[in-house]
Amino acid sequence: MIARTPRPPYYAVIFTSLMTENTKGYEETSNVMLREAAKIDGYLGIESARNTVGITVSYWRDLAAIATWKSHVDHQLAQQLGKSTWYAQYKVRISRVERDYDFAPNLSQNQP
Amino acid sequence: MIARTPRPPYYAVIFTSLMTENTKGYEETSNVMLREAAKIDGYLGIESARNTVGITVSYWRDLAAIATWKSHVDHQLAQQLGKSTWYAQYKVRISRVERDYDFAPNLSQNQP
Repeated sequence: MIARTPRPPYYAVIFTSLMTENTKGYEETSNVMLREAAKIDGYLGIESARNTVGITVSYWRDLAAIATWKSHVDHQLAQQLGKSTWYAQYKVRISRVERDYDFAPNLSQNQP
Repeated sequence: MIARTPRPPYYAVIFTSLMTENTKGYEETSNVMLREAAKIDGYLGIESARNTVGITVSYWRDLAAIATWKSHVDHQLAQQLGKSTWYAQYKVRISRVERDYDFAPNLSQNQP
């Protein structure tokens, strides 16, 4: 779904990846990470899609929240497994969202 | 593929969307837009994936390049078709990439 983020500014971590053929345990770990990330103070939401390339964008209140998540013990372990097993390549971009706008014609809560 | 962007800072436009069931003409227009965007001065690359939600992240040198692309005549027409036909909902976030890092063990050009 489309994340319901607050008004900017906030941060977006854009994680783009290509996987290896060894996806054993990936989905399970991925689901655990989604649950754990959501518990971090400053977590704002996440969006994810994959075809050849996978894109996961997570949203955060500030850089401190991103640092907390990056150093989370279970996440550290998942990152190691990602590098040794699941990911052939990835790129992480930390960006500050300065402006946003919606098109949501059938959602009254998004109308002005 | 993962976009080969330059060193930060640069800009990322994160476009997240949900489609209607009417996708007639979408893929063709989308391919034309990819070609036209790449001609804009300041275009740096694009990444895209779709499952339920679609995420397209396009990268740009600066806000002026983003404004040029937003006002591009063919893109304006595509935006209108998107709102009237293809998209049930979308959100656009304009963000400034402040930091990035790679994991690319088998690509010698990404090694230090």
